[in-house]
Amino acid sequence: MTRLVVPVQLRWSDMDAYAHVNNVAMLTLLEEARIQAFWRQAPTAGAPESAWPTAVLDAGPGAELSTLVARQEIEYLRPLGYRRTPVLVEMWIGHLGGASLDVCYEVRDAPTDEGGTVFARALTTVVLVDTATGSPRRIGPEVRAAWEVYLEEPVRLRHRR
Amino acid sequence: MTRLVVPVQLRWSDMDAYAHVNNVAMLTLLEEARIQAFWRQAPTAGAPESAWPTAVLDAGPGAELSTLVARQEIEYLRPLGYRRTPVLVEMWIGHLGGASLDVCYEVRDAPTDEGGTVFARALTTVVLVDTATGSPRRIGPEVRAAWEVYLEEPVRLRHRR
Amino acid sequence: MTRLVVPVQLRWSDMDAYAHVNNVAMLTLLEEARIQAFWRQAPTAGAPESAWPTAVLDAGPGAELSTLVARQEIEYLRPLGYRRTPVLVEMWIGHLGGASLDVCYEVRDAPTDEGGTVFARALTTVVLVDTATGSPRRIGPEVRAAWEVYLEEPVRLRHRR
Amino acid sequence: MTRLVVPVQLRWSDMDAYAHVNNVAMLTLLEEARIQAFWRQAPTAGAPESAWPTAVLDAGPGAELSTLVARQEIEYLRPLGYRRTPVLVEMWIGHLGGASLDVCYEVRDAPTDEGGTVFARALTTVVLVDTATGSPRRIGPEVRAAWEVYLEEPVRLRHRR
Repeated sequence: MTRLVVPVQLRWSDMDAYAHVNNVAMLTLLEEARIQAFWRQAPTAGAPESAWPTAVLDAGPGAELSTLVARQEIEYLRPLGYRRTPVLVEMWIGHLGGASLDVCYEVRDAPTDEGGTVFARALTTVVLVDTATGSPRRIGPEVRAAWEVYLEEPVRLRHRR
Repeated sequence: MTRLVVPVQLRWSDMDAYAHVNNVAMLTLLEEARIQAFWRQAPTAGAPESAWPTAVLDAGPGAELSTLVARQEIEYLRPLGYRRTPVLVEMWIGHLGGASLDVCYEVRDAPTDEGGTVFARALTTVVLVDTATGSPRRIGPEVRAAWEVYLEEPVRLRHRR
Repeated sequence: MTRLVVPVQLRWSDMDAYAHVNNVAMLTLLEEARIQAFWRQAPTAGAPESAWPTAVLDAGPGAELSTLVARQEIEYLRPLGYRRTPVLVEMWIGHLGGASLDVCYEVRDAPTDEGGTVFARALTTVVLVDTATGSPRRIGPEVRAAWEVYLEEPVRLRHRR
Repeated sequence: MTRLVVPVQLRWSDMDAYAHVNNVAMLTLLEEARIQAFWRQAPTAGAPESAWPTAVLDAGPGAELSTLVARQEIEYLRPLGYRRTPVLVEMWIGHLGGASLDVCYEVRDAPTDEGGTVFARALTTVVLVDTATGSPRRIGPEVRAAWEVYLEEPVRLRHRR
């Protein structure tokens, strides 16, 4: 079981009027972790390559390849208060299809093996598309090889009806 | 089949670097529609009552009752570009439990019976909790009666694996 | 004295943990009003033209001309609570230069002549640039003529030191 | 000349449709740096104290003392693209009044003495108020002593008209 663990810094503005991280803002944290982990280049000139081993995807505005979020599912387990230390977004791949993948997440305050608290579990289906035509593009062998290492059972979401 | 249709104005800032409404921002549109339709009072002094027939819930920071988003699920069907006319968030209740409800949504550019485009379908499970103790609170008979009118089959999400 | 009055709908998510519209979110309200009033086209295919008389600027991502915010200044006069009725963003032009203009704002809950409350006063300097080269572009005679009507004394900001 | 330098991580969602950090989002970066540097406690139970020497202010929702942003002024010098390394928010105090202070900022990609690029210069006037009554509260001697070290000439904003 190999997981990616991306620390993400909260912002005070992630809180809503209830003084906890807003349920929508939680998905922005996941987006940030996902982009850091899966995109090779930040989408502006001069931005350094990502250091993550999974970051083999040349995607984003301007690139030949784009990513499209097709669906998301999230369960909130506990309110998350503002804190100065980053939360950890643990990620793995729950499904690796021809042109899409399911990114699974756990938002935690300490790594799994140190028994921290889980605040949310989620899943995002990302589709790779040709930027020019918008049609799906198969995941190439190099990218597939880099990602297969992180393939695991999909996140268990319990409250689906 | 009775649905709530709340028009929600996009903002230019809802777009991300792809120049379409960001996938996370879409959930903010749903949040706005849901609060307008289900909360009686805006949570600040002097704010007028909602005009929606479903808006019978006295919730929010400061109130005796709070709402908690327990889970969300969303499918993005088509990219949504910035536009000056509001999008329509059609809502109904897919499940009405003891202390929780599933709000179902379709984000459209024209009402269902006029055959518009659907941009997203989604579902939010909201739990009613006691603000002081945090424990679930049963939906009272008056609130239940107001909501039962909007009870319908849950939104059909097709891409669950 | 001719002013533009653009109603802008608040969102629940504009509030921060203090349960008032966040000071930064206030500038998003101004941005929305400014784009609605000054841009002819929304920057996506098929989006209708603006109905505002000042909306003569073909700008935005993809257009030949872009706008650049060069500076902003804002004074917060009173906390703004979430409300269901839109706030009014009154706008006029405080300075019309060769390639730039100063947009002045008052955020209110009722028009000036009805004596409402003012929540904020602000000023944004917008520069017109060539999208391709990034260099400033003179405001053409047609655009200038449309805007001159709204030229007035700049907003009075009192607390500059 | 003693300055506070708070690294702030950008988020992909800070970009707008122009694919640069949005002008409003830039003020969120300043807010985050300011709160980290000046607030002792994060405003939720269990959040650790700030490590910054200036963080002597017990403020925020729930505390006896609150802070109120009274005015802001910002100049944008260069477009800021998304990057994986944090930007540096350099801060100092440009004015220390009875119940208020002017926080001055420079947003940079490298410290001043290493000659990096400056993306923005800004100033925020923060007023200390009694949470219960809303009236201004004098800055106490202990807080004043901690802050005086960072007192310097106010940031020079050049494009005021």
